[in-house]
Amino acid sequence: MAPDINETHDAQLRTWVPSTLPDAASFPIQNLPYGRFISPRSGRPVPCVAIGDSVLDLEAAVLAGALDGKAAEAVAACRLGWLNDLMALPRESASALRLSLSRILRKDSRVSEALKACLSPRHEAHMLKPVDVRNFSDFFTSVNHARNSGKLKRPDNPLFANFHSLPVAYHGRASTLVVSGTEFARPMGQFLPEGSSQPVFKPSEAVDFECELGVYVGKGNALGERISLQDAPDHIFGFSILNDWSARDIQSWESAPLGPFLAKSFISTLSPWVVTLEALAPFRIPAAPREAGAPELLSHLNDPKDRAKGGLSLEFEVRLLTPTMRAAGEAATLISQPQFKDQYWTAFQMLTHQTSNGCAVETGDLLGTGTISGPNSAELGCLMELTLGGKRKILLPNGESRGYLEDGDELIISAQATAPGCVSIGFGRSTGRVLVAQA
Amino acid sequence: MAPDINETHDAQLRTWVPSTLPDAASFPIQNLPYGRFISPRSGRPVPCVAIGDSVLDLEAAVLAGALDGKAAEAVAACRLGWLNDLMALPRESASALRLSLSRILRKDSRVSEALKACLSPRHEAHMLKPVDVRNFSDFFTSVNHARNSGKLKRPDNPLFANFHSLPVAYHGRASTLVVSGTEFARPMGQFLPEGSSQPVFKPSEAVDFECELGVYVGKGNALGERISLQDAPDHIFGFSILNDWSARDIQSWESAPLGPFLAKSFISTLSPWVVTLEALAPFRIPAAPREAGAPELLSHLNDPKDRAKGGLSLEFEVRLLTPTMRAAGEAATLISQPQFKDQYWTAFQMLTHQTSNGCAVETGDLLGTGTISGPNSAELGCLMELTLGGKRKILLPNGESRGYLEDGDELIISAQATAPGCVSIGFGRSTGRVLVAQA
Repeated sequence: MAPDINETHDAQLRTWVPSTLPDAASFPIQNLPYGRFISPRSGRPVPCVAIGDSVLDLEAAVLAGALDGKAAEAVAACRLGWLNDLMALPRESASALRLSLSRILRKDSRVSEALKACLSPRHEAHMLKPVDVRNFSDFFTSVNHARNSGKLKRPDNPLFANFHSLPVAYHGRASTLVVSGTEFARPMGQFLPEGSSQPVFKPSEAVDFECELGVYVGKGNALGERISLQDAPDHIFGFSILNDWSARDIQSWESAPLGPFLAKSFISTLSPWVVTLEALAPFRIPAAPREAGAPELLSHLNDPKDRAKGGLSLEFEVRLLTPTMRAAGEAATLISQPQFKDQYWTAFQMLTHQTSNGCAVETGDLLGTGTISGPNSAELGCLMELTLGGKRKILLPNGESRGYLEDGDELIISAQATAPGCVSIGFGRSTGRVLVAQA
Repeated sequence: MAPDINETHDAQLRTWVPSTLPDAASFPIQNLPYGRFISPRSGRPVPCVAIGDSVLDLEAAVLAGALDGKAAEAVAACRLGWLNDLMALPRESASALRLSLSRILRKDSRVSEALKACLSPRHEAHMLKPVDVRNFSDFFTSVNHARNSGKLKRPDNPLFANFHSLPVAYHGRASTLVVSGTEFARPMGQFLPEGSSQPVFKPSEAVDFECELGVYVGKGNALGERISLQDAPDHIFGFSILNDWSARDIQSWESAPLGPFLAKSFISTLSPWVVTLEALAPFRIPAAPREAGAPELLSHLNDPKDRAKGGLSLEFEVRLLTPTMRAAGEAATLISQPQFKDQYWTAFQMLTHQTSNGCAVETGDLLGTGTISGPNSAELGCLMELTLGGKRKILLPNGESRGYLEDGDELIISAQATAPGCVSIGFGRSTGRVLVAQA
């Protein structure tokens, strides 16, 4: 059963942990996202939770006697601090941990004094990749993104015939998933220069970002078994921001006939926090409506509960900081605000489709939603769409312009879940900076 | 430096281990491929080596005092029996182990009596997947396969423009790689029935095999680094047979625009033995010639040594055993004999291309060559080519015919390296059987 609304979601709850930082609104006591950081106490990677301005060292909290029973067992399961073993536990264990954390972090907590020594300033925390991801599948579930990217090459027929019948996807590269803050060299690659028929091997001239939601698998399935749409929520642990950086010139040249490969595998950036499906219970909304004329959903991808609650009310913000802006001490500029509510396929449909052929998924596997693009020009999730393939540059407030990313450019994606009457919760940030290519 | 010919390749060497089984010719002392099996002594997965009719338990051989120094350390490194830690060691360590094994298994060995208790009958050995593969990339490096498969959809323009300039590839699914002998249910999936525009979700009607060579990465590279073609042999540990089973109907429907996904991820079958690059030193041959009119290789994919020695002289055999044949006690029938010498891109070019954008590869990563098809009709590596997409069925000796695979069909792929004046060495077998779909 998917987690329902319970006392941890109560909008009246407040924490005793200070919340004064600009982004503290992302980490109220209703959120409690998990991460993995270098504990200043032990010097080792340990699981942690974000709360207000702080990071709570979960191992230290157990040692301090603030967590016990199933909650302590869940923390103890995390070898090398990876969240995988916590994610593999039955939902009740993770729920027990969340409930315990909620209680000990509330204003009326009786262990707040003991816990203070387990907190670290969040903005100084050395965050690590939280999950040991063995398999990464990247989907293509925004009809706006599919139509916009299709139009660039096939203006008369932008959507492929399969789009309305299945969440299209391909396998991504797990070895190059990194945590927010990792810088990377502009990738070298093979591509056709404009107007040429002779490929070159050069630094990519079309490095793009893709604003996506990452979906973490909790409980896996055995090879040969399928996960039904009804059961899919039981197998999803949580979510993070995913920036699936892309080299569009490499992608154009390499993709026939097997799809993207090196255009995507140079790096993909995850935010450090895993916002649980349980934390998002108040933000579940109806799936996006089917488009007029779309064929009926095949029955294994159709479920009334998924239609009613398979969507998520998430607002993304994409900001760009150029070297010129950085030198001038300016803040990053907002370049897009994709809305997840427009996503055409739900996260649960993605997982059901992924396993519909008997494919095994493992705890910690990551599914990317693909670029999140809304119907409006201010809601496009990549530069290829924002600039029509680099041809119509976007103007920045300081007079600069961008087609694709330039060396030194930094991209910052954040996301917030919102719903009427609820305390909004955030996902933290996924940031990354493009450095000069290593020739 | 890639391993060169040394005393372990001497064609005069003979082992004291009996070699009477029909396939014993695959495992002479010149081969010494590594595997992982359930040791009858310890009951645990341990690394092992195939020799004649037997499997040598490497852990037992160390305990018996037959292996010491670097050789013993290499064995001790294999946690849970996985070969990964052996593969990650410097080439000298694996070479030291090979040399020690060669010496203790020769006719003049002084430890043969002590080693007898470390042997198990090979045909009774419970073999496991030998390598913990975290990332699997599947390539498309046969020009014959590319042209034959392209012709089915684009008779006038079968090869895409990029084929001659790079080894095309996509990411495969690591979680569904299994060891030879694993049976599997026919995958369910979404596809368009012939002549229909409305997809169905049904058992695939076009289950195919793909005869491939699997390439195991030894030493990896750091994210952002590239592996040059000159250095690529230093990063390849060994090879195995890979059957990349495919559901052609699912593949046709799902692949636009991101390539194959569920058509491949239901299962892929590896042979249990890893034949080392060192063992294959005598079988290295020139890379296949470039086709007339092909553009020049870009410099990072061009190296005189790779042109001179980047190919491998391997002969594959693909056999089919139907339920009718099995019931009649008949042997599997040979349906194809692909030759690896025709492969258009070398294994080393594959690895160099894979990392050319800075993508990190990890020890134990697997690269598949893609279907191995020769220029002749008896050398085609999948049923799609052998039957022109299922339209021209192949006739079997017992009067049966096949378009794609039927329930109960078993596929057996074997491979042998041959060279004049050399003792031929084999790869064992990759077998798998298609069972009825689980509706």
